[in-house]
Amino acid sequence: MKTTTDVSFDLRLETLARRYRAGETTPRRLVAQLREKALALDDEYHAFIHLLSPEELEPYLAVLDERHPETLPLHGVPFAIKDSLDLAGIPTTAACPAFAYTPKTSAAIVRRLVELGAVPIGKTNLDQFGTGVNGTRSPYGECRNSVHPDYPSGGSSSGSALAVALGLSSFALGTDVGGSGRVPAALNNLVGLKTSRGIISDAGHVPICRSLQCITYFTSTAAEASRLLALTALAAPDPEDAYSRANPAWNDGKDFPAIPRVFRFGLPREPEFMGCAESAAIFARAVEHLRAIGGSPVEIDFAPFLETTRLLFGGPWLAERYSGRLGAFMESNPEALLPVIREVLAPAPKITGIATFRALHRLQELKAECDRLIAGLDFVLTPAYPRPVTLAELHAEPVQRNLDLGYYSSFINLLDYAAVAVPAGFLQNGLPSGLTLFSQAFSDQCLLSFAHALQKESRLPLIGGNVLAESI
Amino acid sequence: MKTTTDVSFDLRLETLARRYRAGETTPRRLVAQLREKALALDDEYHAFIHLLSPEELEPYLAVLDERHPETLPLHGVPFAIKDSLDLAGIPTTAACPAFAYTPKTSAAIVRRLVELGAVPIGKTNLDQFGTGVNGTRSPYGECRNSVHPDYPSGGSSSGSALAVALGLSSFALGTDVGGSGRVPAALNNLVGLKTSRGIISDAGHVPICRSLQCITYFTSTAAEASRLLALTALAAPDPEDAYSRANPAWNDGKDFPAIPRVFRFGLPREPEFMGCAESAAIFARAVEHLRAIGGSPVEIDFAPFLETTRLLFGGPWLAERYSGRLGAFMESNPEALLPVIREVLAPAPKITGIATFRALHRLQELKAECDRLIAGLDFVLTPAYPRPVTLAELHAEPVQRNLDLGYYSSFINLLDYAAVAVPAGFLQNGLPSGLTLFSQAFSDQCLLSFAHALQKESRLPLIGGNVLAESI
Repeated sequence: MKTTTDVSFDLRLETLARRYRAGETTPRRLVAQLREKALALDDEYHAFIHLLSPEELEPYLAVLDERHPETLPLHGVPFAIKDSLDLAGIPTTAACPAFAYTPKTSAAIVRRLVELGAVPIGKTNLDQFGTGVNGTRSPYGECRNSVHPDYPSGGSSSGSALAVALGLSSFALGTDVGGSGRVPAALNNLVGLKTSRGIISDAGHVPICRSLQCITYFTSTAAEASRLLALTALAAPDPEDAYSRANPAWNDGKDFPAIPRVFRFGLPREPEFMGCAESAAIFARAVEHLRAIGGSPVEIDFAPFLETTRLLFGGPWLAERYSGRLGAFMESNPEALLPVIREVLAPAPKITGIATFRALHRLQELKAECDRLIAGLDFVLTPAYPRPVTLAELHAEPVQRNLDLGYYSSFINLLDYAAVAVPAGFLQNGLPSGLTLFSQAFSDQCLLSFAHALQKESRLPLIGGNVLAESI
Repeated sequence: MKTTTDVSFDLRLETLARRYRAGETTPRRLVAQLREKALALDDEYHAFIHLLSPEELEPYLAVLDERHPETLPLHGVPFAIKDSLDLAGIPTTAACPAFAYTPKTSAAIVRRLVELGAVPIGKTNLDQFGTGVNGTRSPYGECRNSVHPDYPSGGSSSGSALAVALGLSSFALGTDVGGSGRVPAALNNLVGLKTSRGIISDAGHVPICRSLQCITYFTSTAAEASRLLALTALAAPDPEDAYSRANPAWNDGKDFPAIPRVFRFGLPREPEFMGCAESAAIFARAVEHLRAIGGSPVEIDFAPFLETTRLLFGGPWLAERYSGRLGAFMESNPEALLPVIREVLAPAPKITGIATFRALHRLQELKAECDRLIAGLDFVLTPAYPRPVTLAELHAEPVQRNLDLGYYSSFINLLDYAAVAVPAGFLQNGLPSGLTLFSQAFSDQCLLSFAHALQKESRLPLIGGNVLAESI
C-alpha cells in the first residue's frame, strides 16, 4: 500500500482554512503545487480531461487576492469537476470528444461554489456519458484505482474520486444516476454523498438521464460533505432546474445534527458478497461499530430493491438517456461512442411507450413496498459493492462486471432516496472497501451524521492514494 | 327548465340524517323509492348500467336495521358508483360489455363508504374506459343533460353526475383523469371534487391511466363533499394502492376550515369562452362574488397550463391507457370498442419510450412553471368549460367538441393539482354553467371551503334535473 505523510497535501476543509489563516500558504501557491502534482500523476491515473492552465485559473484566484481568508466559507478551497458539469469557457466533453461544447456559463452548483471562494482546478474523467460505474469507459484513458493498480477507480465519476483520493483537490463534484457518485467513493476510501434529487441545482449538467441524475460530493470525511451540502443546498427550487424542489430538511447553512442515542438501521436479510469473504467480514465489522454507538440492526427483505435495479437496466430508462440531445447526437454520430456504450444503449430506440409506462407503474409499486420496508428505520446499511472486480475482469466482461459493481447502488435514484458511501476498511491487498447508508429523500444531513459517527467509531485511516495516515 | 319541489327527494346529507332521526323515513323505504324513480327515468337518461335489485340491496340495508341512525356517519345515505369502480358481486364493465368482470370485493373507497353506513344503489354509465368528458360514448346509451335535452351530461362520469342531479342518490363516486369528475358536475349544477392523487385509495378501480386517475365526489354542495372527504381520506398510504401517499393536510375527520378574511385568486389573463358571451358574463359574475367575500383577482399567464393539456392528448399518456390490462384487452378485442375510442387510442402502440420521456421532461418543466404562476395564490378560478356543446355538435365532431369541453380541466391531473367544480349559474336556456377552483395537491379541503363560500355568496338554486328550488 502506497502512502504519503506529506501534510502539505492534507486538503481537508478545516486543515486548509487553518493553514490559510495562519499564512502557511496561499490559494495561489497551493493551486500551483496541486497542478504540478496532478500533471505528474495523470499519465498513471488519467483523472483529468482538462486541467486548468495558469491563465484559466487566474480569474478564480484574482478575486481571492482581495479577500481575507475568513470572509468566504470556502476561500481558496481547490475542487475538481466531473466533465459532465459545465465550467465556463472550458469544453464539456462527457468523455466523448465529438460531443464537446464550450459553455459560456458554469453549472449552477459550480457558480455557487466559486461564489463561496472555491477554486476549480480541472474537469475530471468519467465513464462516457455517465454510463457505467467502473471508470474504464473513457477515450481519455482508463481510471485505475488510487491504491491498487490492478483495480479500477470505479465510475462514472472516476476522475472526481481520484482527484480527492490522490490529494489533488479538497473535494470534487460528481454526478450519479445509478451509483456513479458512490462506487468510486467506496473504491477509493472516500465519502460519496449522492444528494436527494433536486436539493442542489442540476442546471448546467449534461442531460444524461434527466429524471434520475443527482449531484454528488466526494470528500475525505462525512463532516466535510455535510459542510458543503449546508453551503450549497437550495433554499428554494431553482427556476433553471425543473427537477429541483422545496427541501423540507433545508437547514439554512447548518451542519448535520447529532445522532440519536439509540437508533435502528436496516440491512439486507441475505447480504450478497459474490463469494468475497473479506467483504463479508468488513460488513460484519461495520454492523458491530454501529451497534457500539447505539444502533439496532433490523434485517429486511431486499428483493424489491434488487428488482428496482433490474428495472433500471432492463429497458425504459435507456430510452430516457436517448431522449435528450444525447440521443440525437448518438444517432448522428454512432462511431463517436465507445463500443460498450453503443452496446448498452442499443435497445433504447426500440423501447415502446407502453413498456415505459409499465415500468413506471411497477416502479411505483416497488417504491411503495421499499418505503414500507424502511419505515421506522433511521437508515439502511449495505455494502457499497458486493466484491471488488479487477481491471482484468472488467476487460473480459465489461457489462456483467459493471452490473456486479452497481449491485447495491443502482436502485437508489429510481426510489428517490438519498445515499452516502462511507469508507469501511481495506482488503488484505490494500484495496478500500465501502458501505452505503441510504434513506428517504431529504435525509442527506441525517445520513451524513450517521456516516460521521461511523467514521469516528471505526477509526479508519484517511488513506486513499495518499492523503494522511490518520483517522478523523 | 323542469323543476320539482318534491322535498322527499332532498337527499342532502344533513337533510337525510335529520329525516332518519325524526323517523320520517327509513333507508329501506327511501332506497325502494329511489329505485323506482331511477327505473322510471333511465330510458330517458341512461344513467345506470346496473341498478341494484332488491336482493342485491338487501345485505347493505340489513346491517343498518340493527344500527341506530346516529351511530354511523353515513347511515342509510344512498350513493351511486361509476362503473369503473368495483362493487362486490356486480359486474364492472367500464362501459364495455365484452370487458366485464365480476369482482369479489368492492373498491377500497366503496368498502369504506359502506362501513360508514352508505348504501350503494347502482353502477353508473360512463364514457367507455373513461375516455372522454362528454357522456355520449357508451354502448349503454348516451347520457343527456339533467336539465336540457339538447345537451350532454358531460363525462366520463356521466351517470354518476346524473344520479345526483336527478335526485337518485345523495352523492356519487366518479373518477377523473382529465376532467371526468368536473365537466359533468358543471353541466348538471353540482359540486365535483377531483381529489388530490392518492389521498383516497384507488384500489379496485379499473387501471385506465394509472398515474393520473383520481377518485371524485359529486354532491349538491361543497359542504357535503368536504364531509365525505373528511370521512374517507386516507390517514396513511394504502398498501393496495401504490399511488396513494401521505396526506400532509389530512384533518382527522374534520371538515374544511373557514376561509381567510382576505385572499388572492388567480384567473386566466385571457379567458377562453369560444364565443359564448353568456359563459363570459357568468364567469365575470363569479369574480365579483369572490371580490365581495374578500378575494383579489390576479391575472396569470395560462399558456403553460394549456400546453400541459396538449401534452395529455398529444401522445404518451395514450400509451399509459394501453399499458395495463386494458391494452391487452383492446388488442385482442378491437371490435369491442366504440369507433371513437378506437380512433382516439389508435396511436398508442406506436408511441416510443423516447417520446414518452421527452413528454415527461416537458411536463416537469411545465409543472415548475405553473407552480411558480400559482405560488402565493389561494387558488385559481377558471370556467369549468369555455362553452357548452350540444349533442348535435358532439355527434358531428366527437373528438374536437370533446376537447372543447375539456379545455379547462385536462391539465389538472398531469400537474398533480386538486380541483373542485362548483355551480356558477344558468344560461338563458336553463343549462347549468360551472366554475373550477384548483390549487396544489392536498389543497382539497381548502378549495372546498372557498367553493362553499362561493355557493353561499352566489345563492344559486340547488337545481339540476330536480332536487330543490332553493339555495344553500
